[in-house]
Formats: sequence, C-alpha cells, structure tokens
Amino acid sequence: MLSTTERTRLNRAKHKTRTDRAELYDLLDEGLVCHMGVVVDGAPRVVPTGYGRIDDTLYLHGSTGARSLRTEGEMCVTVTLLDGIVLARSGFHHSVNHRSAMVFGTPRVVTDERERWDGLRAITEQLAPGRWDAARQPDAKELAATRVLALSLEEASVKVRTGPPGDDEEDYALPIWAGVQPVRTVFDPPVTDPALVHDLPVPEHVLARVTR
Amino acid sequence: MLSTTERTRLNRAKHKTRTDRAELYDLLDEGLVCHMGVVVDGAPRVVPTGYGRIDDTLYLHGSTGARSLRTEGEMCVTVTLLDGIVLARSGFHHSVNHRSAMVFGTPRVVTDERERWDGLRAITEQLAPGRWDAARQPDAKELAATRVLALSLEEASVKVRTGPPGDDEEDYALPIWAGVQPVRTVFDPPVTDPALVHDLPVPEHVLARVTR
Repeated sequence: MLSTTERTRLNRAKHKTRTDRAELYDLLDEGLVCHMGVVVDGAPRVVPTGYGRIDDTLYLHGSTGARSLRTEGEMCVTVTLLDGIVLARSGFHHSVNHRSAMVFGTPRVVTDERERWDGLRAITEQLAPGRWDAARQPDAKELAATRVLALSLEEASVKVRTGPPGDDEEDYALPIWAGVQPVRTVFDPPVTDPALVHDLPVPEHVLARVTR
Repeated sequence: MLSTTERTRLNRAKHKTRTDRAELYDLLDEGLVCHMGVVVDGAPRVVPTGYGRIDDTLYLHGSTGARSLRTEGEMCVTVTLLDGIVLARSGFHHSVNHRSAMVFGTPRVVTDERERWDGLRAITEQLAPGRWDAARQPDAKELAATRVLALSLEEASVKVRTGPPGDDEEDYALPIWAGVQPVRTVFDPPVTDPALVHDLPVPEHVLARVTR
C-alpha cells in the first residue's frame, strides 16, 4: 500500500488516486525520465533527468558539480506517462489520460561503493535495458565524478486517468464529437554512430526495444 | 535572445544551451504537458499539467481549490521533449537526446476576463488543436471555478542534446556498438466516446493529428 500523508492524499480528484504499490513500481519501471524538483535559494527548480529503481528506492545521479544534486532538504520526483488526450464536449472537461507518480523525500547521498554501483546500473538499465553489460563499465575516475542519490519510495502517490471524457450530464445531448486521441511513445530503429570503427551489428538488446 | 541570469546560464554543459527565443517558442509549442514546480511549506512539489503560450507569456490553469496553484512566490515550469536514447560505448556517456525548457518566475493571477478567456483557449488548443471552437465554451460557473495563472517567459533557458554519443577518445577503439535509439511521441487514431448519442464523424481537426 502507498502511504497517505497529507500531500499524497490528493484532496482533489480522489477517484484518480491509486494506492497499490505494484502500480507505482510498474509506472516507474516504464518511464524514461523523471522531473526532479528541488528548492535552491528558496525557489523551485525542476530538472529532467534519468533515474532507476531497486525495490523501494529510487536512484538519481549527476555530476558532483551539479547544483541541483547538491541541494539540501526535500525533493519531489515526478514521473509522468501520457496515454491520450481527452477530447470532451466542453472545453472545461478536456483532460489528459495519464499515469503519474510523485515521490517525496529527503535524498540520501550514497557512499557505499556497492550501492553506488548498483544504483548507477539501475539508472543505465532504466534508460537502455541490456546496456550495462554491453558497455564499458565505470572506472574509478568516472565514479569519483558522479554523485548518486537514493530516494525512498515510502512517501509516494500515483494518479491515473483513463477512459472517455467525463462531460456534464446536459452536454451529452450536444451534437459535438467526443473521444480520446491516444498518445504513445515509440522507439524507432536505431541509428548507428557514424564514428563506429568496427563492423558490428546492432545488438539484440537494442533491436528488441524497437516498437513494432 | 533568452535571458542569462545565474540559474539559466547552465554552468554545466554549456554547449547544450541555446539562446534563441524562437527555439524556446518552438519547443513550448510542440509540448503537451509541462512539469510545474512550486514550493509548498518549504518543500518542492512537481505537478504535471497542461499549459498554453501566447507571445511571451505561458498560461496555466487549475481549480481554484488546487493547492499547487494557490502557491505564493516563484515557480519553475519545465517542458521536456525526448528525441532519443544515446547508447554510448561507456555506461558513463549514456545520455538522452532531448529538448527542454525551464521557465522561472512568479506567476500572476489573471483577473482580466478577456485575458482569462484567451489563456484558457491557449491551454485547450495546446492540448488539442482546433478544439476550442469545436467544443462548448466555458460558462460563468466554470470560469468562476478556474484559476488562470500567467508566467512571463522573460527568464527562461533551453537545453538541447542531439546527435551521436560523445565517448572518451580511447573508447572509440572498443568493439562495442554505439548509436542512438530514436524516441517519438505518436498520436494514434481517435477512439470515439461510446456515450456519443449522435452519429457524428471524427472531425478533421482530430484526424489531422494522427501520426502517419
């Protein structure tokens, strides 16, 4: 079950809130980037970045010089998957079919070398499954230049909207077409780096991701 | 030209920063949702939401009861478009081809009725082009329940990454395939609301958006 603190309870649109932890995991595992919100000098900053999940922990990384990862205090990480544009009879009821997760917490700087490695692996695999084993793995210099943060998934909420428009009762009689325009993220066939010096085929882990 | 305040200067990865205002507009006009960052009780909150642009102003809306729109102070609105996954020879140089905009500022609550109307129109048209004229337009009750915020695009930055991986010089000799896996957002054929009581064809403004 997901927690229900005041800010994850979603006092509006309750019917869209999910409380199943498996749904949180599925959503996070499907996403490609998150939007990481931090407070810098009292002002919000929202940065798109990669992430990875291991069990109940979200991992983030960045250069040790990056301002947004040197933040103290709380963070809000949001992952949003778009599924469709809801075309209602009224402008007011236009909406977006989506699944989104918000994770709140104060991240922990990961210092254990094994956990840093596993976190970086999870982040790479999230973006590009199969890639960690295929690529050259980090050396000591790269590891030293990288900050890894761990954010517990303890305080998180999932919001989902699916299905057709929800118009006002009296609007259903209007002669206005309504429905949903589905939206999808697709992976196109890979483009080989022109600088590749070997005659190597595109690996299976890359081909397997191409949308059919 | 885009402004270059300290936080939009992007002290890291300078080569990715763009300063052309037209590029900001194009990116914002292509996006579907933004991630709006606010500070609530000292903690960041990142909410996915629709938006619209008119000239140098970004419009956001929400229920008058929504916590995130009752915020005082600054806001950061980020729009991210994913173009591809960069599959490098080293795990360290894996990246994402993307275009992202960050807009910083203190939003203004729009009170002028004409501007509120235009802002709501822009938000609806961003999500669903052609829809404002096709749908029933807002009535007085709906307008009263809706808060419209205006955020100036004065302080904004655009970050773009394109092209093949940028591996370390010595890694190009490795027998590791590298390239880019392109990512695209597509619109599938619309699904008519099963509750439609009239025999209406799917309108042209909806069909025109289907990805071919």
